[in-house]
Amino acid sequence: MKKPDFFALRFRDNQLEFIDQTKLPFEVEYVLTDDIERIAGAIERLEIRGAPAIGIAAAFAMALSQKKETSSEFFASSLVRLQRTRPTAVNLFWALDEMRGVFNSLNPGIDAYPVLLSKAQQILQGDVESCDAIAANGLEVFLKPSNVLTHCNTGALALGGGGTALYVIKKAYEAGLVKHVYVDETRPLLQGSRLTAFELDYYGIPFSVITDSMAAFIMKTVGIDLVITGADRIVANGDSANKIGTYNLAIASSYHNVPFYIAAPWTTIDTNSQTGDDIVIEERKQSELFTVRGNDISIPTYPARNPSFDVTPSNLIAGIITDRGLYRYPYTFV
Amino acid sequence: MKKPDFFALRFRDNQLEFIDQTKLPFEVEYVLTDDIERIAGAIERLEIRGAPAIGIAAAFAMALSQKKETSSEFFASSLVRLQRTRPTAVNLFWALDEMRGVFNSLNPGIDAYPVLLSKAQQILQGDVESCDAIAANGLEVFLKPSNVLTHCNTGALALGGGGTALYVIKKAYEAGLVKHVYVDETRPLLQGSRLTAFELDYYGIPFSVITDSMAAFIMKTVGIDLVITGADRIVANGDSANKIGTYNLAIASSYHNVPFYIAAPWTTIDTNSQTGDDIVIEERKQSELFTVRGNDISIPTYPARNPSFDVTPSNLIAGIITDRGLYRYPYTFV
Repeated sequence: MKKPDFFALRFRDNQLEFIDQTKLPFEVEYVLTDDIERIAGAIERLEIRGAPAIGIAAAFAMALSQKKETSSEFFASSLVRLQRTRPTAVNLFWALDEMRGVFNSLNPGIDAYPVLLSKAQQILQGDVESCDAIAANGLEVFLKPSNVLTHCNTGALALGGGGTALYVIKKAYEAGLVKHVYVDETRPLLQGSRLTAFELDYYGIPFSVITDSMAAFIMKTVGIDLVITGADRIVANGDSANKIGTYNLAIASSYHNVPFYIAAPWTTIDTNSQTGDDIVIEERKQSELFTVRGNDISIPTYPARNPSFDVTPSNLIAGIITDRGLYRYPYTFV
Repeated sequence: MKKPDFFALRFRDNQLEFIDQTKLPFEVEYVLTDDIERIAGAIERLEIRGAPAIGIAAAFAMALSQKKETSSEFFASSLVRLQRTRPTAVNLFWALDEMRGVFNSLNPGIDAYPVLLSKAQQILQGDVESCDAIAANGLEVFLKPSNVLTHCNTGALALGGGGTALYVIKKAYEAGLVKHVYVDETRPLLQGSRLTAFELDYYGIPFSVITDSMAAFIMKTVGIDLVITGADRIVANGDSANKIGTYNLAIASSYHNVPFYIAAPWTTIDTNSQTGDDIVIEERKQSELFTVRGNDISIPTYPARNPSFDVTPSNLIAGIITDRGLYRYPYTFV
């Protein structure tokens, strides 16, 4: 079977084209749209996911808001709609701010669409370049051919470019520095067993999926040399919000003396927030724990908690790999 | 909707009757059989599960092996078949040894069936009594009305009696000592979100299901006063094998200074093994991570690990609640 090629998102024929990540790895299906509401809904339903990919999609959506006519009312309402999609990742708000800055600087009578489109393309291009820089900077944390463990999906599906943590792992594999990748399945939405497994299978990198609850067992019995995950928001002191389960994993890493790294673009750093306590954690609907791909795995009305993210305190993070270099605890981002 | 009544297993009409735990919480369905192979298969497929319930079912199966005629060959081959079902829980081997002891002590010409049946009933009755004693002894660990977190299923479904860890929680709730129960869903087989949720819903005890990866987040943000789980094998130094994820949970508990308790019958203690390194960990088929109730949640052929259990070192265990009392670290079982 020839494996399907894939990309997370691109702009073509004056529309945003994105892979529907909720259908992976079963179907590789793309959506082509210039509808703001469709894009906002895709972000909410996680058809588009990954903090940087969300920012890029939102930037193109803001450009598309001015495709048919220039209207500051529609620009403003589109901005509000997109801001409301998901609260935790900072890249979304950063990208929307960038687009608003460009829009507000335009002289009256100027056709906003091509200018905004150019800015969105520039954000996408910046993401591609920052992924490359992160991957290059990340090689430094591999001291020998290693067993690596990761959580959620941080590869080419999560970004416009090659990825963050998973791209570091891919480049390290190509450099002979990765023996095996252990992939947390990442409940409840299974970004690990669906998306990261899909990418690693595609790249031909040896991996094993594990339940999130097996990480400590694997560290103890197999031995893990390092853990790398992404982040959705890194605040001034280095506390980092990432997919739920990251905090558990960082604690297990610390217990086993396994260095725990985060890889993220500089745009993920939010120096307006001082500590992790300032981060708003998105709580999604309870039924996500009980229904997978339309099939109930337990009773959907049982009470549940469903925070999408948790915060890992900076003292559990051995290093933060960014496009501007590798930062070490204690963190100062300047 | 009236909630269905339930029991894990019982003996009636000269057959073993057990609830099919793989169909819960969707269907409450019982199987009535006197077929050894059917019972062995039920243990392998986790239709019957929970270390003590497995031991009881195996004891009745050994009695049933002599129902139609006394044959030491069939007794021996049935014993081997049942020994091969699941390697980790010690209760199975303990119950089989008890049955073999009785069988070997019989004089020639004696009808073995009623004698073996009486022994199996005695094992079941012993389990009921030990559950009651565990629940009574466990109250001691509740210092105030508490938020409790548990993993897997250790209630009436897992045993002949009321349960171990979950029965302690139930009795503590009835004594006004439980505010809320957080239930790890317990991947991959979801014993928490299917079975423990079913029991707590039935008992009317307030609970929330969480993914296994949320435990640390809940400890940090909500506050957990104590964690209680069961065990499948406790060795001489107190190292305890239990459902995969227990070790992760014990580490997260330690990090948050949450006391981590185990509740288990005395028969779970295997003083022939000195440390956790001596425990054989069952590895189940990889596809269990990718298929739930016949529906694929990711590609079933992706590589995976699927250990059913892990070992929690005794120094992470604040206390072991048994029918003979509460033991504290460092452990000496006499």
